[in-house]
Amino acid sequence: MGSVKTKRMPRAVRERQMLDAAVQTFGQRGYAAASMDEIAELAGVSKPLVYLYLNSKDELFTACIRREAAALTDAVRAGVRPGLGADRQLWEGLRAFFTHTAQNPDGWSILHLQARTHGETFAAEVSAMRKEIVALVTRLIAVAARDGGSPCSNEGGEPGDHPGSDLPEREAAGLAEALVGAAESLAAWANATPGVSARQAATTLMNFAWAGLGDLMEGRSWSPPEPDRP
Amino acid sequence: MGSVKTKRMPRAVRERQMLDAAVQTFGQRGYAAASMDEIAELAGVSKPLVYLYLNSKDELFTACIRREAAALTDAVRAGVRPGLGADRQLWEGLRAFFTHTAQNPDGWSILHLQARTHGETFAAEVSAMRKEIVALVTRLIAVAARDGGSPCSNEGGEPGDHPGSDLPEREAAGLAEALVGAAESLAAWANATPGVSARQAATTLMNFAWAGLGDLMEGRSWSPPEPDRP
Repeated sequence: MGSVKTKRMPRAVRERQMLDAAVQTFGQRGYAAASMDEIAELAGVSKPLVYLYLNSKDELFTACIRREAAALTDAVRAGVRPGLGADRQLWEGLRAFFTHTAQNPDGWSILHLQARTHGETFAAEVSAMRKEIVALVTRLIAVAARDGGSPCSNEGGEPGDHPGSDLPEREAAGLAEALVGAAESLAAWANATPGVSARQAATTLMNFAWAGLGDLMEGRSWSPPEPDRP
Repeated sequence: MGSVKTKRMPRAVRERQMLDAAVQTFGQRGYAAASMDEIAELAGVSKPLVYLYLNSKDELFTACIRREAAALTDAVRAGVRPGLGADRQLWEGLRAFFTHTAQNPDGWSILHLQARTHGETFAAEVSAMRKEIVALVTRLIAVAARDGGSPCSNEGGEPGDHPGSDLPEREAAGLAEALVGAAESLAAWANATPGVSARQAATTLMNFAWAGLGDLMEGRSWSPPEPDRP
């Protein structure tokens, strides 16, 4: 078990320190370049202890993906509070998302970049989290459309105050895919662009998305020109 | 050079056949599972000939990424015709994008999925293409905002007919990131969902994006609630 002494400490605490160090190292240096030596040193433990707790670099990386995915999903769920109007729910959800990705740039880099560029197993972990978020957003959009998505319903007015439109399930799913894709892309951009705050990123996406979604929720949709030009 | 006889054929034609076979195999089976034997057989040539032309599985995969990236970028550029109104340009660009990704699902799978999940070198190839498309969309949004983005300017009216708003460069870049991310996400969803046509996917994104962008281009933006709730 190596010769480095480690202070007695509950396993959970020790493990969290290792994961913190691993997220930072994988996020900043990339999966391939990150070494177990570096992670152990940053965590202040011996390398054998890291292997004892997390088995292998692959399993350590998988543990990082799962922890960061759960943290991000929890943050978004906590941001979206039922009872607010649709635009307010969208705004709070976006703000929670961009605040979390700005405050955890290494975790976001792992989820958005590292996990997707190093093989199908890791990509599948992220894909599971993404499906969950898309399903959450799909439900929110469907409910908001049914209840009417008037921007005036900020104060949590009775559902049905603004009769909305029944959005087909598939249309809601497509809109959710678009919104999630836009948010992922913007988060990567915001973290890579000096001076763009979480609030600005959320405002940009809200600007982009709201009026479009808002119109849809009141049954006004954009129609392609007819007859179609070739 | 092996013993399989191959008909005399110009190198460019032969190479295109190999790339066609490679795109299909990588796209459908994934980078790791695809074998050079399979690709050679599908192309109707000997495996040594594939190696002679394309050197290695990695170089063959890189050649696939580059060809498919160029084809997609060309398709989008061809779709966006200057002189149309902003909404019409967006619509034509989206339609070109979704038509291309629907008609070339294997190429899109390589760009969106395979190339991003198998190491930083391949990911960098896709990243270069993506930057180019984001830059194109950023310019379109900035110009549309400056000229006014009225949906009524379909017929290519004089720029300036609808005085618009000067969108800060950074805001235009953020909106372009959001739009491109939404399009990528929707294309993957449309290709994976039976019965969703290119036109439907383009209409969904247009619905999502246009009213929002359209409002912005006329200087109407969404404002976050003040004072902010915690």
